[in-house]
Amino acid sequence: MASPNVLTPQAEDFPRWYQDVVAKAEMADNGPVRGTMVIRPYGYAIWERMQFEVDARIKEAGAQNAYFPLFIPKSYFEREAQHVEGFSPELAVVTYAGGEELAEPVVVRPTSETVIGEFMAKWIQSYRDLPLLLNQWANVVRWELRPRLFLRSSEFLWQEGHTAHASFEDASAYVKMIHAEVYDDFLKKVMAIPSFLGIKPASERFAGAINSMTAEGMMRDGKALQLATSHELGQNFAKAFDIYFQNEEGQASLCYTTSWGSSTRFVGGLIMAHGDDQGLVLPPRLAPTQAVVIAVRDEADVNEACARVAQDLKAAGVRVQVDRARGSFGRRVTDWEIKGVPLRVEVGPRDLAQGVVSVVRRDGGEKLAVGLDAVAARSTALLDAMQQELFAAALKFRDDATHDVATVAQAKEAAQEGFARLPWAVVDGEGEATLKNDAITVRCLQRADGSMPDSDTEKDLICIVAKSY
Amino acid sequence: MASPNVLTPQAEDFPRWYQDVVAKAEMADNGPVRGTMVIRPYGYAIWERMQFEVDARIKEAGAQNAYFPLFIPKSYFEREAQHVEGFSPELAVVTYAGGEELAEPVVVRPTSETVIGEFMAKWIQSYRDLPLLLNQWANVVRWELRPRLFLRSSEFLWQEGHTAHASFEDASAYVKMIHAEVYDDFLKKVMAIPSFLGIKPASERFAGAINSMTAEGMMRDGKALQLATSHELGQNFAKAFDIYFQNEEGQASLCYTTSWGSSTRFVGGLIMAHGDDQGLVLPPRLAPTQAVVIAVRDEADVNEACARVAQDLKAAGVRVQVDRARGSFGRRVTDWEIKGVPLRVEVGPRDLAQGVVSVVRRDGGEKLAVGLDAVAARSTALLDAMQQELFAAALKFRDDATHDVATVAQAKEAAQEGFARLPWAVVDGEGEATLKNDAITVRCLQRADGSMPDSDTEKDLICIVAKSY
Repeated sequence: MASPNVLTPQAEDFPRWYQDVVAKAEMADNGPVRGTMVIRPYGYAIWERMQFEVDARIKEAGAQNAYFPLFIPKSYFEREAQHVEGFSPELAVVTYAGGEELAEPVVVRPTSETVIGEFMAKWIQSYRDLPLLLNQWANVVRWELRPRLFLRSSEFLWQEGHTAHASFEDASAYVKMIHAEVYDDFLKKVMAIPSFLGIKPASERFAGAINSMTAEGMMRDGKALQLATSHELGQNFAKAFDIYFQNEEGQASLCYTTSWGSSTRFVGGLIMAHGDDQGLVLPPRLAPTQAVVIAVRDEADVNEACARVAQDLKAAGVRVQVDRARGSFGRRVTDWEIKGVPLRVEVGPRDLAQGVVSVVRRDGGEKLAVGLDAVAARSTALLDAMQQELFAAALKFRDDATHDVATVAQAKEAAQEGFARLPWAVVDGEGEATLKNDAITVRCLQRADGSMPDSDTEKDLICIVAKSY
Repeated sequence: MASPNVLTPQAEDFPRWYQDVVAKAEMADNGPVRGTMVIRPYGYAIWERMQFEVDARIKEAGAQNAYFPLFIPKSYFEREAQHVEGFSPELAVVTYAGGEELAEPVVVRPTSETVIGEFMAKWIQSYRDLPLLLNQWANVVRWELRPRLFLRSSEFLWQEGHTAHASFEDASAYVKMIHAEVYDDFLKKVMAIPSFLGIKPASERFAGAINSMTAEGMMRDGKALQLATSHELGQNFAKAFDIYFQNEEGQASLCYTTSWGSSTRFVGGLIMAHGDDQGLVLPPRLAPTQAVVIAVRDEADVNEACARVAQDLKAAGVRVQVDRARGSFGRRVTDWEIKGVPLRVEVGPRDLAQGVVSVVRRDGGEKLAVGLDAVAARSTALLDAMQQELFAAALKFRDDATHDVATVAQAKEAAQEGFARLPWAVVDGEGEATLKNDAITVRCLQRADGSMPDSDTEKDLICIVAKSY
């Protein structure tokens, strides 16, 4: 009998593997309304840990959390021409409320530049009020025709930062700092995902931005996933919403604004960057349960040892759970593997007689016999090592699958199984259109040394092209 | 010249005082769409602390966070007759999305019993899956004709717990535990608000519940505010959404469900339960800044001492902020008073020469001269004392303004300035209608000893009646 928990192998059908993992690890379900999502407790616990880490970095960067309304007057969107053009096809609109037709239809926010711009204009009087650094955690709605859980859903959860500054330079420096110190730092240290940082070509820019930065991660099928974006909005929204300040000379000046966001898409990225044919592989820093202590049999000695080991692990700061023997041992192990719990501590009568337990790494290390008293110290060291090694493995995977090429034709070939890197001058214009016919897009522009350019008009830029989610 | 920060006195016009505090403490603004609200950073920081405390208690009670969609098919509401009748007048409806008219209109959730019921039915198979204990933090929408910031807004933030159980007794015991251990414990220990716990009369029950419990706090104008509610839903939603489980005998049985919620209304309650004519008075456990160190003058010695005191306070676990001398000292003090910061540590050159600083309690204690090295220890002791004393003061205020009466006429009189307590038998029926003509409602039913009854059919119940928000 095939186990109901066997997943479609990645190599056979990657999208199907993804669906299987999301369902069998009990991460999420499809909601009843098209494209909406139910985030189940296990998926939500991972999201809470992501929020905790990102929120701490945002506060460290000096931004304050606030909350702006879900409902935005439709007229607000029409004030910034590119913004309304970009978002119109995705808007959900409330036309009826409180028992009657509304005089002005109300948009369910797809992003909040407009309504936040309105309040920035009200709150900012003088240069002393700048920079104004805000962030909100909220749900947003963008109607999706081809939804996929976590990756592309009609409603998703995110944080959106919005800031106003006295000068172009200050706005630019701040948003670049956010991109590096909040997003890239979180991706590297917590998600264990290396990403290519760069700027989007004009064709992929946020609607209303003068510059959009991205962090592009590589998934296990070689495709790219945009993990976070940060935008310089210039004075576009300041003009549309009259965000003026009185400068030190007493003159009215227009602000420069920025916005930057990351979302529950992180969960999708986590699954696809590290998962394998046995299921999720969670970086220890994000794992709701870092170690599961598994009783091999339901016997008094075993249960007692499990409780003791769990207590030691908890005291050492490890998030731990005990799985007392109920049902097949093999089946329970498979379930914990699917959920990606980093360490299994297996406690059986034979090992116990020797004073040891078995510690098994989810990422494929050997089974270690560890003395009862040493489990906590050994586990914390293993968890630290796994966090590092997961990143190193993802980096190697990505670099092995990223190829320097010279022509659009070669880029097309390389992008069948990974990323291609080539001069932007070769792609800019017709090349970009040619690639798009094959569902290959320019993920980002970088300097030749891999660093972030100031704008897409810099000379000698290279670009990274790939298929993407 | 009148200071722009002077508030309308409470005794003159309480609703106006409330509006003034919300505006001048920079708690919230009205949103552009009717009844919506912008929660500003200071108000949101208080809400984050509330969330942290409530969330920890919910997790302690064994419930897990999850997230369900904002959009609910309209047909879901029609499955439970009382529920649709209760909520229809308040619903906001999306009729248009993704560029076209929707085949089925979609409701923006006013509460999530329906959609969560649908998924409970899917996830629950057998008695082993019970109890299923879920919670979500989310925004909800109920169209308001007479909105007031934090108290009654068209969109608000809340947590809603939803649980399913194998028996009536288990459901009932769990939701009563939540009401006491999550809500009342939080209200007492963190909000410093004593509340009357009791059950709602049938006329005030949640739409679809068989029993609704409430926690009613008294505001400084003697009116009641419903602070949290917990509902036994019996099998009403289980029937409507087919939430069955296989019991130990292998038979299909209907579950019993509960729901329970608390919201950003807490912030309104906090303002009105403790505030005075100088502004907010925050319980130390909820204050984003517990102590502000104020430089009386901008001098090197003073600034250095401020930094040192702030460091000591921080090391002692106090949330501290330094206010370096800029602008009038009196004006700065007034601003910190409006924001309700529990302790002011005033650092001036004359005091410093004596090796002391002045510590001032927001709740009206005298100015204390405290030696530089003793500030941290003294402050933590003062903060603990203030937390206790704030509760004691609120309890005394409430009890002084709660009167035992015998008739509906006396109740009407007592409710002009506080709460009235009288036998439910006297009010039940015509009395309730008479009181309602004067905007006085039955806030809750209790046993004569003040404890929670099992149902509104118990004998010898008393009721508490009051004007309310």
